[in-house]
Amino acid sequence: MTSPSRPGGRTARTRQAVLDAVADLLVAGGLAGVDLGEVARVAGVGRTTVYRRWGTVHALVADLVRDMIDTSSPRSDLGSLDADLRANGRLVSRTLADPRQGPLFAAFVAAAAGDDTVAELLRGFYDARLAEWAPCVVAAVERGELPAGTDPVAVVAAVSAPLYYRLLTRAERPTRAHGDRAAAAAAAAARAGVFAGA
Amino acid sequence: MTSPSRPGGRTARTRQAVLDAVADLLVAGGLAGVDLGEVARVAGVGRTTVYRRWGTVHALVADLVRDMIDTSSPRSDLGSLDADLRANGRLVSRTLADPRQGPLFAAFVAAAAGDDTVAELLRGFYDARLAEWAPCVVAAVERGELPAGTDPVAVVAAVSAPLYYRLLTRAERPTRAHGDRAAAAAAAAARAGVFAGA
Repeated sequence: MTSPSRPGGRTARTRQAVLDAVADLLVAGGLAGVDLGEVARVAGVGRTTVYRRWGTVHALVADLVRDMIDTSSPRSDLGSLDADLRANGRLVSRTLADPRQGPLFAAFVAAAAGDDTVAELLRGFYDARLAEWAPCVVAAVERGELPAGTDPVAVVAAVSAPLYYRLLTRAERPTRAHGDRAAAAAAAAARAGVFAGA
Repeated sequence: MTSPSRPGGRTARTRQAVLDAVADLLVAGGLAGVDLGEVARVAGVGRTTVYRRWGTVHALVADLVRDMIDTSSPRSDLGSLDADLRANGRLVSRTLADPRQGPLFAAFVAAAAGDDTVAELLRGFYDARLAEWAPCVVAAVERGELPAGTDPVAVVAAVSAPLYYRLLTRAERPTRAHGDRAAAAAAAAARAGVFAGA
């Protein structure tokens, strides 16, 4: 979330300070902790700015999600399914193991459990990420590495699933080895045709 | 959680009413909603009973986890890896799709994100469930269905992961078909040796 070198003038810096504050408060106290006045205080910007530019907690969270989508790493294109899924597995495990991003994703999932709007925003984030990486699987099908009819989104989701499962149900940060294993498992299942048809 | 036919006298009925109330309050308002007085009120039992028998929110949650472990379905023993993992996938998807249990698990994960004691209790629940089902994989290795050195717990966890991932990151209830696919993916990856060796 923190991007010290991000371009942009005062408006962009204000937005970044506000979104950083939203992320910090979400991690510290869940959705209930994201109070507009408190966001302004933590961000060091005027309350009027926060009320005028965002206005609601959901608008703040929606903007944070938009920023997360915009600043997420693009897919790789390494020429083989194994290499691309491994790159994805390493990216996701690195993100979830990050001392700032890991707790943020856990806090997002927690907030989504009790708030339908946040759940929809979070689903939007994952839809964007799955759509970003799905072409790696499409290319693998075209290269004949995977059966025709393989569901690209299902394969990419299969890489993420065990890494999120570890973080969320066990409160354990996934390692690079976990990322590699998640990628290998998804690739093996895809080759076996598990994600083709139905 | 509700087991109308559960045996036991007044003490057992009181415990059940209290644990049902804890689950309801956890789903409705997260960990902050599990107030001892409120638990007594919702359960229809005396406050003194709740304070004397449990005393703390963590003791209530710990007892709920113990009850969840005690009342969870035992593993299957159907003679083949595919059949056993499919039984597990269907059990987990049925549980997470249950209108009472699904939100309870989501609420537990949410509470664990902000409370280390709850995170540890939840990990204890999953450890118990993984240990219950791991012998299915051990038996498959002994039958020669899987490579020697396959990590039984990793295989069982791989069945659950996509089902939890769907519920927690997408707020979508997994279906029986999702359970079957999760089982098939875990079995294919295990056969390919993904869970054997480090």
